Amino acid sequence: MGNCAQGFKDFFCRPKNTNVRVSLPAVCFVWQIAMIILFGVFIRYNEEADTHWVEHKKSHNITSDIENDFYFRYPSFQDVHVMIFVGFGFLMTFLKRYSFGGVGFNFLIASFGVQWALLMQGWFHTLDHSTGKIYIGVESLINADFCTAGSLIAYGALLGKVSPVQLMVVTLFGVTLFAVEEYIILSLLHCRDAGGSMVIHCFGGYYGLAISWVLYRPKLHLSQRLNGSVYHSDVFAMIGTLFLWMFWPSFNSAITDHGDGQHRTAINTYLALASCVLTSVAISSMSQKTGKLDMVHIQNATLAGGVAMGTAAEFMITPYGALIVGFCMGIISTFGYLFVTPFLEKYLKIQDTCGVHNLHAVPGMLGGFIGAITAAAASESVYGKEGLISTFDFEGSFKDRTPGTQGGFQAAGTCVSIAFGLVGGALVGLILRLPIWGDPADDNCFEDEVYWEVPEDEESIPPVLEYNNHMIHKHQDISEFSLHDVL
Amino acid sequence: MGNCAQGFKDFFCRPKNTNVRVSLPAVCFVWQIAMIILFGVFIRYNEEADTHWVEHKKSHNITSDIENDFYFRYPSFQDVHVMIFVGFGFLMTFLKRYSFGGVGFNFLIASFGVQWALLMQGWFHTLDHSTGKIYIGVESLINADFCTAGSLIAYGALLGKVSPVQLMVVTLFGVTLFAVEEYIILSLLHCRDAGGSMVIHCFGGYYGLAISWVLYRPKLHLSQRLNGSVYHSDVFAMIGTLFLWMFWPSFNSAITDHGDGQHRTAINTYLALASCVLTSVAISSMSQKTGKLDMVHIQNATLAGGVAMGTAAEFMITPYGALIVGFCMGIISTFGYLFVTPFLEKYLKIQDTCGVHNLHAVPGMLGGFIGAITAAAASESVYGKEGLISTFDFEGSFKDRTPGTQGGFQAAGTCVSIAFGLVGGALVGLILRLPIWGDPADDNCFEDEVYWEVPEDEESIPPVLEYNNHMIHKHQDISEFSLHDVL
Amino acid sequence: MGNCAQGFKDFFCRPKNTNVRVSLPAVCFVWQIAMIILFGVFIRYNEEADTHWVEHKKSHNITSDIENDFYFRYPSFQDVHVMIFVGFGFLMTFLKRYSFGGVGFNFLIASFGVQWALLMQGWFHTLDHSTGKIYIGVESLINADFCTAGSLIAYGALLGKVSPVQLMVVTLFGVTLFAVEEYIILSLLHCRDAGGSMVIHCFGGYYGLAISWVLYRPKLHLSQRLNGSVYHSDVFAMIGTLFLWMFWPSFNSAITDHGDGQHRTAINTYLALASCVLTSVAISSMSQKTGKLDMVHIQNATLAGGVAMGTAAEFMITPYGALIVGFCMGIISTFGYLFVTPFLEKYLKIQDTCGVHNLHAVPGMLGGFIGAITAAAASESVYGKEGLISTFDFEGSFKDRTPGTQGGFQAAGTCVSIAFGLVGGALVGLILRLPIWGDPADDNCFEDEVYWEVPEDEESIPPVLEYNNHMIHKHQDISEFSLHDVL
Repeated sequence: MGNCAQGFKDFFCRPKNTNVRVSLPAVCFVWQIAMIILFGVFIRYNEEADTHWVEHKKSHNITSDIENDFYFRYPSFQDVHVMIFVGFGFLMTFLKRYSFGGVGFNFLIASFGVQWALLMQGWFHTLDHSTGKIYIGVESLINADFCTAGSLIAYGALLGKVSPVQLMVVTLFGVTLFAVEEYIILSLLHCRDAGGSMVIHCFGGYYGLAISWVLYRPKLHLSQRLNGSVYHSDVFAMIGTLFLWMFWPSFNSAITDHGDGQHRTAINTYLALASCVLTSVAISSMSQKTGKLDMVHIQNATLAGGVAMGTAAEFMITPYGALIVGFCMGIISTFGYLFVTPFLEKYLKIQDTCGVHNLHAVPGMLGGFIGAITAAAASESVYGKEGLISTFDFEGSFKDRTPGTQGGFQAAGTCVSIAFGLVGGALVGLILRLPIWGDPADDNCFEDEVYWEVPEDEESIPPVLEYNNHMIHKHQDISEFSLHDVL
Repeated sequence: MGNCAQGFKDFFCRPKNTNVRVSLPAVCFVWQIAMIILFGVFIRYNEEADTHWVEHKKSHNITSDIENDFYFRYPSFQDVHVMIFVGFGFLMTFLKRYSFGGVGFNFLIASFGVQWALLMQGWFHTLDHSTGKIYIGVESLINADFCTAGSLIAYGALLGKVSPVQLMVVTLFGVTLFAVEEYIILSLLHCRDAGGSMVIHCFGGYYGLAISWVLYRPKLHLSQRLNGSVYHSDVFAMIGTLFLWMFWPSFNSAITDHGDGQHRTAINTYLALASCVLTSVAISSMSQKTGKLDMVHIQNATLAGGVAMGTAAEFMITPYGALIVGFCMGIISTFGYLFVTPFLEKYLKIQDTCGVHNLHAVPGMLGGFIGAITAAAASESVYGKEGLISTFDFEGSFKDRTPGTQGGFQAAGTCVSIAFGLVGGALVGLILRLPIWGDPADDNCFEDEVYWEVPEDEESIPPVLEYNNHMIHKHQDISEFSLHDVL
Repeated sequence: MGNCAQGFKDFFCRPKNTNVRVSLPAVCFVWQIAMIILFGVFIRYNEEADTHWVEHKKSHNITSDIENDFYFRYPSFQDVHVMIFVGFGFLMTFLKRYSFGGVGFNFLIASFGVQWALLMQGWFHTLDHSTGKIYIGVESLINADFCTAGSLIAYGALLGKVSPVQLMVVTLFGVTLFAVEEYIILSLLHCRDAGGSMVIHCFGGYYGLAISWVLYRPKLHLSQRLNGSVYHSDVFAMIGTLFLWMFWPSFNSAITDHGDGQHRTAINTYLALASCVLTSVAISSMSQKTGKLDMVHIQNATLAGGVAMGTAAEFMITPYGALIVGFCMGIISTFGYLFVTPFLEKYLKIQDTCGVHNLHAVPGMLGGFIGAITAAAASESVYGKEGLISTFDFEGSFKDRTPGTQGGFQAAGTCVSIAFGLVGGALVGLILRLPIWGDPADDNCFEDEVYWEVPEDEESIPPVLEYNNHMIHKHQDISEFSLHDVL
């Protein structure tokens, strides 16, 4: 027993080995092959992407190709796609020496995530039980991007502290948990959540925070020198911020109802985001003695309005209602960056690199409740009889549900997403504590050198004119100079 | 009287105080709350974004949701949105130490501007007098982005020399003036100006130049060291240039007529821009002894073709006509950067940081006149009877207007936009001279440190290997070295 | 005769003169004027972009403006446009001191290329023999972007080693050759190649490689210090990679059939790209002792899946078929970067700066053959009778062609594109060896200083506080220090 405990301790306390030369290729290959097999068994084109579309048109009396769902959703899909890969990716380049990891690992796990999401969401939502197949179209691609977003949000909390293999695990379980909670919230509770305040942001935020809590690193201050930005890395991060901000109306409206649904959702999200920028700037400026702005707030808190409109944007929240949501979110999120993130780290042992607590978890949760209130306040006089039915999908077995009841279910859905995030994240965190994943040592976090071939520094480009004569000799001199003489 | 003059002088000549900790949050909060109240009173969804769309479809015999204006305009809207926030924002990151201010303040004022524009344009153009409400849809969002662009152009002339509070004032009055001149030009004079050569670029350019003239800083050379680019800031600026350049066909076509109107406008703009690149490169190369290119020209003059096609692109200017416009604009704009900007600064006391004179003011003005000529040359044989009516909107009280008359009105519209820009800008400039806005001192312009928390320089990241042992000590040594030993 | 040979030798061996002050403006002006004249003679708006659209609608029983091809293709066009200018442009910013040239020359030659392509493709494909005019619309713009892509791919092989004048020549002949081979492949052989695996990537790749082979520089190692990236230039290149990756589904689907054609093509491309990322990462990690990833692979090999799906994506290749294609391409392309590029340089004297062999030439060729196999395997049972006809355009004089025959022609098409690339490239390379084009010396490659006004280095921004007192004096001191004392 003592031996066992000792062996156990040795196993968990041995020095960190960040070599992922076996584990990373193995995970990529095996999981990709699994995807191919499962796609072979399950995934087919749906009737709008299949060559039988010609016949489908005739049998459904569709007069024009423009009625193909592709033309309703593809522009929004591409905007969402940009948010997932450039938006999230570049938002995470803000660290001075983790830009490769920020944008590169985001690229890797999102590419895996969308495949796994097509399967998981297919099994839960669109499996045709008569043929045993999942039929996919452009809406499936959007949903897969959404589903992956949950795991990318979690990555924000873990940025710089985990290995790419761990991130693949985070994504595998993140997508799985997402598909289950989404099924419960959207199908069983029959909630509406087009932009995913609950199912994406709230879940993803708490999922990441819970993992980060289990993976707490008491000596993370040893990497403190690298846990910050430099001038140009902050500008790179603004690319991410702006593409997220600009395309958020597409994100929230991508899978809402054709026609007025997409139209209204885009307007509401646009307004909430605009309003959110002003209050984020205001609080950021107030927080410094001389009124200076902090890039962390501008990069992140300005987006909270979009997160919080994920549920309610398709309802008749009214334009000024959208402005009010953005107004409050800018304040809450910036306060979060100022006070809550340090508090979480100090007292709750949660190290949240990107502050997903303030950008996703809390605004997502509040967005869920805002959706609940807006739904409960819906009435036939405002929505119109048919409008009410189509907005809340009061059809089939839900045809007798009232807006009030719907509001209750929406609130319940938010709680489900929090629970899934916290419990799921804690469990996944435990798995990630196994010392086999190649995560970095405490004094080696936020450092691209660990997992990337990093080019030599810019400073060491010698002057061009003198270079060629003494190429190698000079080069060494410079290095020696900077290392020995100066320091 | 002497005392009064003295007091007046003291008030205006006291040392600059750049603390905006009270003024910036105050402006943001108060104006945002005003927006919420005004939106509550005035703004509602239009019938295509409202849940009553189902009934609207029936009553208007619309068979498919795809007829919703959302699907005609939303992809163009998103392109315009990217131009406003990433295009203008990143174009202004070219200064070596003002990238935060360039992209960040652009973000702030555009977010305020679009809200105020929805109100101002609504009151002038789409107020329903029976209900007292403004009904908004996707076209309103595009127009709001357009309206804001005028103020962002003005920001280009002022870049680095004003405080964020001043920029908010510039935007408040800029949007207001824009809405008035737009009403005069488009509604009273019944001009066509889909891409806004006149109402956006010409107005915005002269508005910024007039403000800059009033705010002339005789000792600006004290900041000369920072009034230039570094290698990477020029690459960042190319992100702005390219997104503006690529999406300009969407900008000009975003609110033109459905069908051939949008189609033709996009083609004409695309061609003018392509042609403009070649002549910009040619003049830039000719201007240097060894034929080297100047990034300033590539970043800016290449866009002048799009500006100048803002009015005429929806007319039958013919593809080669579009090429000729681009050809001339590349030449004129590059010459402007070479000779006119220095002339303006030296002799007319106009300091134009981004050269908006050459990119917006002059090409916009010329674009207005090109539009006037193209309109005057229109004929039924080229346009077709119905085409002529729908292109120039010769309907209602304008049904008897001839193309010749239309040309005259177009030219008059251009003059209105210049007048509004110059007079409005001079007045706003006077307001901005009040010493309460927190603008920087002459030796402190083009410097992010004034309004932003700027991270420490990249050069001071110490080598990783040696860092941990002597973290704080070493760090100081480096700073001391660079400050005392070297300089 | 001896004199002649001597004179010939002198002509070819004189020291390099990189002054392009006459040649570059001359080429730009003359060619642009030629474009204007040719456009004047040949190019007109097609019936969907002309004001006669109103009448066209009536005569063709089109009920809604949304049936205008603009709404089917414009969103995809804009995505393609972003790929051409930001995608290709930023992908080529990875070199530490050639970012201006990468993105700037790409901008120049693409702007010329699209104009020339409208003419060349018009003459071959859409010339109306009754009127002698070419009628253009949004599909023409997409095709022009495609046609230009071939030359931009070739630029990738030549990056840093040629002058802008040479690049204009490469583009002039590249577009010309493209139009001819495209005519042979698509019209005469009646191949399908929507995303251009054959006509764009295979042709462009081999075209660039053949030029590079003729322009072999035995002493290129003299510029080796600049033939690599720095940290931030690699992040800039990721902007290019991601926009290419995200919008590739639009690239491949931009000109496929309305309806299911565009829908299916987008899905297949999306899947192949996702799968390709995982195997690229796997091989990249395996290739390093400690499993570190190489940015070169992440920036390039991840895109090979999109290249290889250019032909087959519109066929019923099935979702798992798409995954398999991506799977293999990620492996093949990364291996190419690891082993084939060094091999080509060492043994075949082909210097391929960006590795277009691995990203375009080989995946394009394989994509052609994958298309051939998929076509040959097509059957009425899978495609449906009408689906088979519309997918392969088995109409008119090709109405009796079988899928098997079609497969043979597809394979033949691939060989045609290779032949055009190799032979055309060798000839163009010979033209480029004339010593009149201003190309850089062997020790001066990969260096923006040659053709650009480059701002002084960031390191030489002196500390702000001390600057103003001793501006000029201090500045010199620093320069002297770094040049004399250190080195």
